[in-house]
Amino acid sequence: MTETAEPEATPETTAIGDAWDQLEVIVEAADPDAAHEFLRELPPGETARLVAQLSDSEQHEFITLLHDTDAASLMESLPELQAAQLLAALPAEQAAQIFDEMESDEQVDLLDQMTDEQSEAILEEMDPDEAENVRFLAKYDSNSAGGLMITEFLAFEESATVDDVLKDLRRNAEEYAEYNVQYIYVLDHDKQLIGVLRLRDLLLAPPTKAIARLMIANPVSVSDLTTLEDLQHIFDGRPLFGLPVVDAAGALVGVVRRSDIEEAGEEQAGRTFLRFAGILGGEELRSLPLKTRCGRRLSWLSINIVLNIVAASVISMYEETLSAVIALAVFLPMVSDMSGCSGNQAVAVSTRELVLGVIKPGDFLHVFRKEFTLGLLNGIALGVLLGIVALVWKGMPALGLVVGGALAANTLIAVCLGALIPLLLKGFKLDPALASGPILTTLTDMCGFFLVLSFAQLLLPWLT
Amino acid sequence: MTETAEPEATPETTAIGDAWDQLEVIVEAADPDAAHEFLRELPPGETARLVAQLSDSEQHEFITLLHDTDAASLMESLPELQAAQLLAALPAEQAAQIFDEMESDEQVDLLDQMTDEQSEAILEEMDPDEAENVRFLAKYDSNSAGGLMITEFLAFEESATVDDVLKDLRRNAEEYAEYNVQYIYVLDHDKQLIGVLRLRDLLLAPPTKAIARLMIANPVSVSDLTTLEDLQHIFDGRPLFGLPVVDAAGALVGVVRRSDIEEAGEEQAGRTFLRFAGILGGEELRSLPLKTRCGRRLSWLSINIVLNIVAASVISMYEETLSAVIALAVFLPMVSDMSGCSGNQAVAVSTRELVLGVIKPGDFLHVFRKEFTLGLLNGIALGVLLGIVALVWKGMPALGLVVGGALAANTLIAVCLGALIPLLLKGFKLDPALASGPILTTLTDMCGFFLVLSFAQLLLPWLT
Repeated sequence: MTETAEPEATPETTAIGDAWDQLEVIVEAADPDAAHEFLRELPPGETARLVAQLSDSEQHEFITLLHDTDAASLMESLPELQAAQLLAALPAEQAAQIFDEMESDEQVDLLDQMTDEQSEAILEEMDPDEAENVRFLAKYDSNSAGGLMITEFLAFEESATVDDVLKDLRRNAEEYAEYNVQYIYVLDHDKQLIGVLRLRDLLLAPPTKAIARLMIANPVSVSDLTTLEDLQHIFDGRPLFGLPVVDAAGALVGVVRRSDIEEAGEEQAGRTFLRFAGILGGEELRSLPLKTRCGRRLSWLSINIVLNIVAASVISMYEETLSAVIALAVFLPMVSDMSGCSGNQAVAVSTRELVLGVIKPGDFLHVFRKEFTLGLLNGIALGVLLGIVALVWKGMPALGLVVGGALAANTLIAVCLGALIPLLLKGFKLDPALASGPILTTLTDMCGFFLVLSFAQLLLPWLT
Repeated sequence: MTETAEPEATPETTAIGDAWDQLEVIVEAADPDAAHEFLRELPPGETARLVAQLSDSEQHEFITLLHDTDAASLMESLPELQAAQLLAALPAEQAAQIFDEMESDEQVDLLDQMTDEQSEAILEEMDPDEAENVRFLAKYDSNSAGGLMITEFLAFEESATVDDVLKDLRRNAEEYAEYNVQYIYVLDHDKQLIGVLRLRDLLLAPPTKAIARLMIANPVSVSDLTTLEDLQHIFDGRPLFGLPVVDAAGALVGVVRRSDIEEAGEEQAGRTFLRFAGILGGEELRSLPLKTRCGRRLSWLSINIVLNIVAASVISMYEETLSAVIALAVFLPMVSDMSGCSGNQAVAVSTRELVLGVIKPGDFLHVFRKEFTLGLLNGIALGVLLGIVALVWKGMPALGLVVGGALAANTLIAVCLGALIPLLLKGFKLDPALASGPILTTLTDMCGFFLVLSFAQLLLPWLT
């Protein structure tokens, strides 16, 4: 019989309700085997939510109940920040035992989310070899090949035979079982990488053959400093599970796996999304302390208030015009908001094209040409629309002309700015997702207010 | 010697400049081998950009020059939409030959991006077996296990021995080389999946052993209708490269690989990002026709204009108050924009927590409690700040009270709404990324305008 993981059939609230009841029984009975079974049978995707809704002391009790290997795989299935918070709350000794069971890249990622004191305390309690390895990996930027690689790999000297390798594999079958081995790396006497051996080639070869004659020579490898972005492109073009990572001296130091690159890409996309909406300082989960959450959100909002004052000061300069034609006040937020939206669309397309590698910061003219025509057409369409609305609503043809004309011009400006700002920021090595929105909004607000009010001043005789 | 893929050392514009010159020579010489080398040596990530900047006829010439396998792997390294556009522009026969060289999931994804006529024309020219397979796969939702799986897998009957399998592997080594085999599936007489065999276990077993005694029985499998979201959670918890996919009758129909799930997750995150910024109808690349791009962006902007009119009508109702205290017009956009930003932060956190599975639509109260306190604290902080600005700028204490109080109250409202709207939408099976922003902005604009102007009306004697 086959165990089939069906999409959940029961309503979501029932599923977690049952799980809660079960969990209570297990924690009361302090039964590690039941805890193991419980985790195994939890519907996919429920773990993170279940843990999020436990109180601190319940979380503590539950994890203490788990075998270290179960706790380690639980941590790997949780969002990084959540796992790091949980582990940091445990006694360092207990956390260290769980860390010892994790893969090296996961160890580094989770310690990276803790304070220096927390991670240092855990490192001191860890297996000395594992700890040394983590300290070595922690020196790398987390979005470089060195920071993304695992150090669990199989390497043999070129003089080994197929039989030597098979014997070693059999002898260490248990240890290697955790390695997820896809390739075996072949080194020369100086530990330099000279070849890669696929498991399936090993399968089909006579036992006495030297692996040096079976390997793929001159394999593609990456430097330990290669960026995530470059790694994504390298994997895009090649059907590989993993790539060997070499240091400046050409020595093999680890393996980056496709799955890790893709996971990192997904995480980065998630953080980009948060930054785009004004959440700075990394992932925000609601399990973070209130002070941290308030502070992080305010840090962005307080910059935003300054930008808003700058934009609003334009209105302040035209208070006379505004009090002569009070209907303008109705249309000011509309024009600035509409063009802000048009500009944001262009920001998103540029940001996306940069991520996909379809454009680079230097492609200024190409992007400008493409967006200018679009901005012109959409500007005219929206301007006519808003002009008609103003005419019908307030019965003033001149008002329609003012707000329609201002929206048309401001849409063109916003679309071009929105398309080009991410390129400029990227060119200056800044994060387009973070800064494009606020810069764009401030500029389009200022322009929008200025265009409406200065057009109105020009046509004042026909407006009053 | 090892070929190391270093991060690009040369400035970006030079790299692509050189590539352009090379490409011209190759196209003129019509040299397929040079084209092959050219692609192989292009810096990682440059392919998509190079192709994007070629004119339509140049693209055509270049692809015609490539071997079908090179063209197929070029397509796999391009963004899906770009690849689909390129292939749709080729004669159907030529496109079909390139399609025949792709993996089944890629075939379906690219045909999915074309019009029905385009994809039908190509399917008719393809290898009949491949075409039939694609038609079978195309029936699945593209974000289900059936739509994400590949149909290239190895399966043997339970009665086979290790030797049988090895002989078959050797005999078909060339065909299987494209399969990226990690597991071998074991079927009973009714083609039902009963076990999985790992390559490394095959390595270590005596040749006469029956695979039924070597396999992992009752393997985890997924239904062909399992959603991408569920698949992500299933892979999260298990260190697997791929999972067998079975149909309603329990027959093995394909394999979903971790890498495909992660790629699909990344693509989905990208589309979420675009939708969040108001780009509907899927991926937008600037190589799409201008008409399509204008239309898609306008479809969202024209909804937005209606929402803006609704919000602005609140201002219109208070024109008298506004003309009495014209300084209010300066603060109206500030209050609505600031609270919109606060609300957007909460939208992003809720959307992200939904994606990570930390919350579900039913967790209304949990989310409300967490955001209420945050909204209250940030509201007070921002309200005090803006109140002081108004007081200092315009020298009117009552104005400070009005705009500060309005911002404080509206921030609290916006944060709570922003946090809860994505849960509501998700509960109704709508896309939180798409609809949350506009709903939130309209509501917070209306509330903001109303709060400022009604507070002002109350305090009117002190404002004039």
